[in-house]
Amino acid sequence: MVRTDISALLPFILEGIEPWLEKAAAAAEKLNAETAFAGWLHLPSNTSAELLDKINAAAAKIRSDSQVLLVIGIGGSYLGARAALELLRPQFGSDGSPEVIFAGNNLSGLYASQLLAYLEDKDFSINVISKSGTTTEPAVAFRISYSLLEKKYGEAAAARVYATTDANRGALRTMADKAGFTTFVIPDDVGGRYSVLTPVGLLPLAAAGISIKDMINGAKAGEAEYLRKSSDNPAWLYAAARQALYAKGKKIETLSFWEPRFRFLGEWWKQLYGESEGKENIGIFPASLELTADLHSMGQYMQEGERTIFETMLYSQPEAPVVIPFDEADLDGLNYIAGKDMDYVNRTALEATAKAHTDGGVPCMRLDIPAVTAASVGNLFYFFEVACAVSAYISGVYPFDQPGVEAYKKNMFAMLGKK
Amino acid sequence: MVRTDISALLPFILEGIEPWLEKAAAAAEKLNAETAFAGWLHLPSNTSAELLDKINAAAAKIRSDSQVLLVIGIGGSYLGARAALELLRPQFGSDGSPEVIFAGNNLSGLYASQLLAYLEDKDFSINVISKSGTTTEPAVAFRISYSLLEKKYGEAAAARVYATTDANRGALRTMADKAGFTTFVIPDDVGGRYSVLTPVGLLPLAAAGISIKDMINGAKAGEAEYLRKSSDNPAWLYAAARQALYAKGKKIETLSFWEPRFRFLGEWWKQLYGESEGKENIGIFPASLELTADLHSMGQYMQEGERTIFETMLYSQPEAPVVIPFDEADLDGLNYIAGKDMDYVNRTALEATAKAHTDGGVPCMRLDIPAVTAASVGNLFYFFEVACAVSAYISGVYPFDQPGVEAYKKNMFAMLGKK
Repeated sequence: MVRTDISALLPFILEGIEPWLEKAAAAAEKLNAETAFAGWLHLPSNTSAELLDKINAAAAKIRSDSQVLLVIGIGGSYLGARAALELLRPQFGSDGSPEVIFAGNNLSGLYASQLLAYLEDKDFSINVISKSGTTTEPAVAFRISYSLLEKKYGEAAAARVYATTDANRGALRTMADKAGFTTFVIPDDVGGRYSVLTPVGLLPLAAAGISIKDMINGAKAGEAEYLRKSSDNPAWLYAAARQALYAKGKKIETLSFWEPRFRFLGEWWKQLYGESEGKENIGIFPASLELTADLHSMGQYMQEGERTIFETMLYSQPEAPVVIPFDEADLDGLNYIAGKDMDYVNRTALEATAKAHTDGGVPCMRLDIPAVTAASVGNLFYFFEVACAVSAYISGVYPFDQPGVEAYKKNMFAMLGKK
Repeated sequence: MVRTDISALLPFILEGIEPWLEKAAAAAEKLNAETAFAGWLHLPSNTSAELLDKINAAAAKIRSDSQVLLVIGIGGSYLGARAALELLRPQFGSDGSPEVIFAGNNLSGLYASQLLAYLEDKDFSINVISKSGTTTEPAVAFRISYSLLEKKYGEAAAARVYATTDANRGALRTMADKAGFTTFVIPDDVGGRYSVLTPVGLLPLAAAGISIKDMINGAKAGEAEYLRKSSDNPAWLYAAARQALYAKGKKIETLSFWEPRFRFLGEWWKQLYGESEGKENIGIFPASLELTADLHSMGQYMQEGERTIFETMLYSQPEAPVVIPFDEADLDGLNYIAGKDMDYVNRTALEATAKAHTDGGVPCMRLDIPAVTAASVGNLFYFFEVACAVSAYISGVYPFDQPGVEAYKKNMFAMLGKK
């Protein structure tokens, strides 16, 4: 479970958090009344054993016949799976599972050409993820990579394609039904940025050997906790605190994590919050920091730049004790921490940084999570989703649309001469 | 050479760019008068063939006896080399050069333990980069990884360590001289974030097989161009435009690039600008976007969130033509761009996005660079360095210190009981 610690915010929220928790309660009511896009809300408890079995069966086939799984998707069809993979897989080398490579999230010719050359002599499968099947980036990537798949495997190519798409409509559904791809469904009432716990995220994770059952169970435990009507609900606390700070002129939130493997969790979080809240000319600007690395890059700005920032520290429990060795000569002066665990020093750095930033005018709260496992990652995804919807409703915007995303597409289609 | 295109900014800089270019000229004078930390300014033309030969000789040894080069450093001793490597190496698989792994930029026990396990059965060398040798993160990483190196190679371990450090002083210099490590010098008058074109950045790049001679030559060409006293100097234009926008209330700059391989160039840029300008409670908050991916995550915020953002598009010339194939069925509706090059679509997306964002109240300028090569990357590093110093001087702060970085360290040492 996530624990939200806002104790250090009190000097910044002078009227106290209570009025903001009342707003959170009202926002939670709105969320309960949502019908069009609230499919994610009880998704964990509604996920059937049959669905997980079907995903695991597809994953088992991919694991048996593929060195690479190419996952084609953009936005919400990309960031969640990548975030979880970076959190849960080894950071160096391979554990013997298929390599997962993401494509369809850019239009770079070099990326595509290097990817095609790399796949040429690999056994691979494709998981193409798109509600419509017509979004430019994934559609281009699928055309190109499916050509290679057909060249390599001929008529057997279709059996290596897993399409995650709409149940009934759209180009990818039509293609899949015609060609006989294995298909998985993106529910109608789950928007892209809330879709990580559907087959969108689950199939790539299962193919990488991650327990999606544990992940869903972790999220299911979150349903009980984060939908609870209580002023100590950690999702309400997080939502209330960030809106209270925004009202006080803190316009930028940095999600600051303490290990490199959280980088794409940060990217997933930026989409969730930026796309849900950044509308009608308001919204907290979401940024992320990888600490302690970024204390030596963005640390100066955090300490002394414009005082319009607040910080959310995301800290997970240690997993691997590494003791700092004693050194007779002690030229580097580290013997005062010799014998200590690295994670003890890491946690101390967190506390030192929280104090320094708070003293410098950057309010700092903390989200404490257990050790990183499939279950705790599922729980964390769900926590952020609930807190985001509540936070957006507090700020007065509708959390589940993204009207601004069409503007560049409209220009692009006109410039490309699309009829 | 970088070309700075600010033509789309005119609606936002009502008084015109001229007064800001005058400020840039005055700022460039201050930069010329700087003595303490201006070693980077003529570094490219002052870099001797002997130094490059010495670096290349060390690199050749690493390439001959190591599967992995472990580069230990944080902040400016980390981000530049990583940025250039991600730009210049293959994005998938290996080209046969040693793998470069970065350490000493975090305090995660899990990262360290997975790294040690991975190195156990690899031949590896260490490049430890630190002016003082006592910065906590790299010092801890070096203690731990040098232990493994000694366990594997005994007395031959020292011949596998390359220390990039102060010429005369500090713990790492003392250790290196005592143990007989090969050493390279970080000049006194070059700060960390301006050090990528010293041995700090050059040795890891040479070990990866990148031409550091080309990189320095590219930067050297930049000296002629970006130190030129002229209102069409592209570094002045960039510096003037960003400060003009900041004065108009645009508080956040996103550096938006069009291929995934620019991600760590963005991180390097964030340190350079954030650490140089974020002081005295002012400064543009630097953020980065990877496009088109982030159009499907941060795109909504860019289009309709708070109108306090401006955007700098960084675009490099295409390198690999990949033609979008024709498909008889055309279910995905892509045939209107069949036969076109992916990079043509990418460039069109850039123009469509620049127009959409500008129309939406986010002023958008463009930095055009040639195809990505060692020379053009060296040139780009140097461009950003000059423009950053000029921009900081325009804003009234001193570009070369970072007083705020000490605050968390002071707290941390107290909490850890350092005498």
